[in-house]
Parts: sequence; C-alpha cells; structure tokens
Amino acid sequence: MNRQWVLASRPVGAPSLKNFRLNEAAIAPPQRDEVLINTLFLSVDPHIRARMRNVKSYAPPYDINHVIESGAVGQVVQSSSPHFKSGDFVLGKWGWQEQPTVSAATLSTLSAQPEKLSLALGALGMPGLTAYFALLDIGQPKPGETVLVSGAAGAVGSLVGQIAKMKGCRVVGVAGSDEKCAVLKNELGFDGALNYKTTRNLRSELRDLCPNGVDVYFDNVGGPISDAAITLINQRARIVICGQIALYNREKTEEGPRNWLYLLVYRARMEGFLVMDYAHRYPEGLAALNRWIDQGLLKTRETVVEGFENTPRAFLGLFSGDNLGKQIVRVAR
Amino acid sequence: MNRQWVLASRPVGAPSLKNFRLNEAAIAPPQRDEVLINTLFLSVDPHIRARMRNVKSYAPPYDINHVIESGAVGQVVQSSSPHFKSGDFVLGKWGWQEQPTVSAATLSTLSAQPEKLSLALGALGMPGLTAYFALLDIGQPKPGETVLVSGAAGAVGSLVGQIAKMKGCRVVGVAGSDEKCAVLKNELGFDGALNYKTTRNLRSELRDLCPNGVDVYFDNVGGPISDAAITLINQRARIVICGQIALYNREKTEEGPRNWLYLLVYRARMEGFLVMDYAHRYPEGLAALNRWIDQGLLKTRETVVEGFENTPRAFLGLFSGDNLGKQIVRVAR
Repeated sequence: MNRQWVLASRPVGAPSLKNFRLNEAAIAPPQRDEVLINTLFLSVDPHIRARMRNVKSYAPPYDINHVIESGAVGQVVQSSSPHFKSGDFVLGKWGWQEQPTVSAATLSTLSAQPEKLSLALGALGMPGLTAYFALLDIGQPKPGETVLVSGAAGAVGSLVGQIAKMKGCRVVGVAGSDEKCAVLKNELGFDGALNYKTTRNLRSELRDLCPNGVDVYFDNVGGPISDAAITLINQRARIVICGQIALYNREKTEEGPRNWLYLLVYRARMEGFLVMDYAHRYPEGLAALNRWIDQGLLKTRETVVEGFENTPRAFLGLFSGDNLGKQIVRVAR
Repeated sequence: MNRQWVLASRPVGAPSLKNFRLNEAAIAPPQRDEVLINTLFLSVDPHIRARMRNVKSYAPPYDINHVIESGAVGQVVQSSSPHFKSGDFVLGKWGWQEQPTVSAATLSTLSAQPEKLSLALGALGMPGLTAYFALLDIGQPKPGETVLVSGAAGAVGSLVGQIAKMKGCRVVGVAGSDEKCAVLKNELGFDGALNYKTTRNLRSELRDLCPNGVDVYFDNVGGPISDAAITLINQRARIVICGQIALYNREKTEEGPRNWLYLLVYRARMEGFLVMDYAHRYPEGLAALNRWIDQGLLKTRETVVEGFENTPRAFLGLFSGDNLGKQIVRVAR
C-alpha cells in the first residue's frame, strides 16, 4: 500500500488534523520513464498553508482529496527510467506519500552520504537557497552592519543569521523560546537573541540588542515583530520579505500600524522574495552552502519527527514553533 | 520692515492658522557676503508639516518663533557679495519672509524669464526633480507598463504622470476632485483618473482603470488609497514612497491592513525616496525637465495664492487639496 496524506478540507483559520485524511492507494508499477520510490524524508513547510486555501497565489491551490505536495527524499525501489536504478537516492516533490510512482523527469539524484540526505530538504534545499539568495541578493549585508532576523530559529532564519555572521555583520534573532535563543547565541553564533513570547517590551529590547539600528531586517514572520523592527531601521536599510507566517492563518486581513513613512524617512527598501525566481542560480547557491557546511562554517539544525503518520502533526507544529531549524519527517530508514 | 511668518506653536493633529504668527523684523543691511532680497514667490510644501513637529526626521524641526524655512524666489535689492548684484533673480531657502538678508552662499542665480521664475519652486525645482528621479530611478517604468499615481494632481504627481506617459506607460491618477481628474485626463494626458472623494469602491474602480494591474505605484499620499493600490500590483512591481500626506497630521500611528504579503507573493519592491539624495544629479534632472518643458512635452500647472499674508492659508490648503499642481504664493511682482 502507498499511504498518502490528502487534503480533506480547507482550514478556516488555524489548520488542524481534521483537514488531512490518510488514504491508502495501491502501489503502481512504474510505466515507461517512471520510478517507484520508497520515501525516506518528507518536508513540511509554512507555504503549504497558502496552498490549502482555494486562492490563486504563486503556486496553485491543492485540490481536495489530493496528496499534499512538498519536497521529499527517497530511494528508488523499481525504475523504468534509464536515468535511475534501484537503490538510488532521489529528491522530488511527490509530497506526503510513502511509496509513490512518479515521473523520472521530476526527480534529481542525491549523491550525499545517507546521514546527510535530509539536508536536501533543508540547508541544501529550498530553505538553504532561500537564505542564501534572499539575504545576499535582496538584503545585501555589508561588514559591520546589523542584521535582524525574525523566525530566527526556523529553517531559513537559522541559516540567514549564520551567513550574515560570515559576512561580518552583527546578527540579532527573534525566536519563540529561551531554548531557541540559547541555541542561536551559543551554537549558531548570533550576537543577540530575543524571545518574543516572554519579552515585556519588544521594541525597546530589540533596540537594546541593536544599538546601532538595523541595516537589514530579514522577515520570516510579519505582524507585531515586524512592526517593532521597522521602527529601528537605519538609512538605506533593506527589508527582505521572505515569509509572513504570523499572518497565514488569518481569514481576514489583520490591521497593523501604517508604517510606510519609515521607508521614506530612511530611504529604505522592502522587497519580497521567492526562491524559485533564482532557479537559474541554484548551482551557485548549492556550491556555496555545501562548501560552508563542509568547512563547518554553517551548522545545520533539524527537528525530526518520526513516522509518516505524524506528518500533519509536524506541519501544524510549524505554527506553534515546535521546530528548531528545519522540520523534517522521517518516514523510513 | 521684513515681515516674517514664524512658528507660534506646534500643531496637534491638523495645523491651523494659530500655529503661525506674523512677525515684523527690521531690515538688515547686508554685511560682507550677504544679500538683501525682495521675495517674489514662496513655496509651501507638505514636508513643512513634519518640521513643525518636535521630532528628528531627515530635516531638523523648526524652532518656535523662528521663520518657516522653505524654498523661495526673489530679486536682489542690495548685495555685499561679488557673486550677486542688485536686480538679479535668485533661488534660496530663506522661507516665509518678505525682505530677508541672507548669506550669498545659500543662493543660486536664476536666469529664467520673469514669467517662468516660479517654476524654480515647482517643475524646475524640488517637485520636478523628485518626479524625475523617483519615477525613473526607483519606479523604473517600462513601455507598456501601468503606472498608478496617488496625489496625481499635486506638484509631484502631475509631473510623474506626464513623464510616465513619455516613457510609453499607461498612466492612471488618483486625485481629490472631478476638476482635477478632468485636467489630468484632458490636459496632462493621463489615461484614467479617479476622484477618491466620490468613488463608491476605490479598489474596484481602480482595478477597472488598471485592467492589466499596476507595475509602478507612485505614492504621494499613503493611507486607504495605498491600501487599495497594493492589492493591484503585478509581479515585480515597484512602489515608490514619495509622500504620505494622508498621515502627516496624525498624532498616533494609524492602523491599516497588514499588506507586506503582497510584496512576497508578487516579489515586489517598495522603496522610500528623498530628493536630496540625488543632489549630485540635479543638473541631469534639470536639463531633462527644461528640455521637456521647452518642447511642450511637460505641462506645468501652478495654483498661485496672492499675498504674503496668505502664506499659512496656502500651506493649510495642501491638506484639503486646494491646489492643482504646485502651490505657490506670490509675494510681489
């Protein structure tokens, strides 16, 4: 049986387990140019929430009763493609299913050591490439500047901060627990970290952590953390809009302070980022990320949930901040 | 007597006449390198409101009992500078006073014909340079794109729309009266114009006027007009934050929809602009603006209030939209 998690219903507000249904499909023998895969690792990502909504965005909505699409790593069980053979490790987008049969054209080979395979969903995958291009191309950090990162302990944020450190910046992160803040400072080299869930005054504590103001605000969350961050920007600051997870579960547009005037006064720039726009430069990004990881300059943190049956739970945990680093589901060993 | 308008008190909320006081100072004979001037034209500008507040911004606040500083055009009465002689027309920043004595170093010579002198405060001054650099450098309009301008009948907006037309764009303006909209369409070549004060549904009417979406949103006003505009942006849109006049009289930060997610979904960029950052390129901008005016490609609209005593009234009128094009005060002929 190929177990699959399908979209059962569209959430209103925060998603819950009842929006997903476990489906059992027959295993399909691979036809010409198809490959049967045994899933090893699945990715759960905040942007999945957007596709559960029946609204056109940069990616099409999921259909009801269809498998949740996401990044996945697996091993070839049976191949009818000349490009893959049984035993190969592959990366694809077949999503939340255990034993899918997919077109070979949607796969790429992974040559990593088995213990590093899951990095293809994290630091050596979309989150890593996002951190690399969004920070360096949009954020353009310069030595001595202050980089403030929201969602700093997440899959992208934890890498952004480390890359900014490599570029000679002072790096401050906002995260959702004292444990995360400790990891940011003690393991990942952040200069400062703030637990937004326990702070008494977000803005003044951020200001204390950023005594020279903020030159790059790398935003993964939006909402009140960003409201505070924009009040601290320096002249010619760059604000990278990489995610707005604080808003994804809102059914109505939330209200917040009108703050465009900060951009005028400080001649700052705010720009949205989507990693797929950089597909032509993935090789460059992957080469740099690989090198940094091999040199020990970039530490990769993962939170691994065991078991295919726990995939929706791992996804829901993203919105309560259960993960430290990239959230992975291990489906098989 | 050198009559002067000085700051009497700082406004709370909307400014009023009582925030200004008419002062009579003695005429000061020019000392070495000083020039005595007879003011011909004064500028009133939205950014004066910011400097009435006791808050550090990109320009220092006005002091109580001090003359309101702004752009001004005048004629030299008496000169103790080798660079100016009696009868010369000059441009400076001496602000709201009739017969000031100022340092020659703060003046530049105007060689324009007398009937064109006031343009140095408008299309051939800061508003013109703002329109030129903010639109072309930040907005980067391309032929066939749609440019939406708020405050479209104002000093800057009326020029922005015309320059965008020269660049081959579809241009739509938002303004505050039917008369203004008629001028935008019939005289200044806008493809569409919307009176925001009488529209029933700002967003849907804007969408009708911008059937291909918005590639450049040139924002002079902020607030609800901008809330609607951002929902219409195309992929890779550029939003130029040039002014936020709808917010200048607010004492507390107003709330509006959280809309940073639009930037992410459409990979759009929003950037603040201040003309003084382009001082090194003023000659380029002035040359282009002069050429376009001479060729009849750029029409310059002014609203002229007569009489020095009416200067504060002309300033207050900016916030109720009394002006069409650049608001000028004629002090003497």
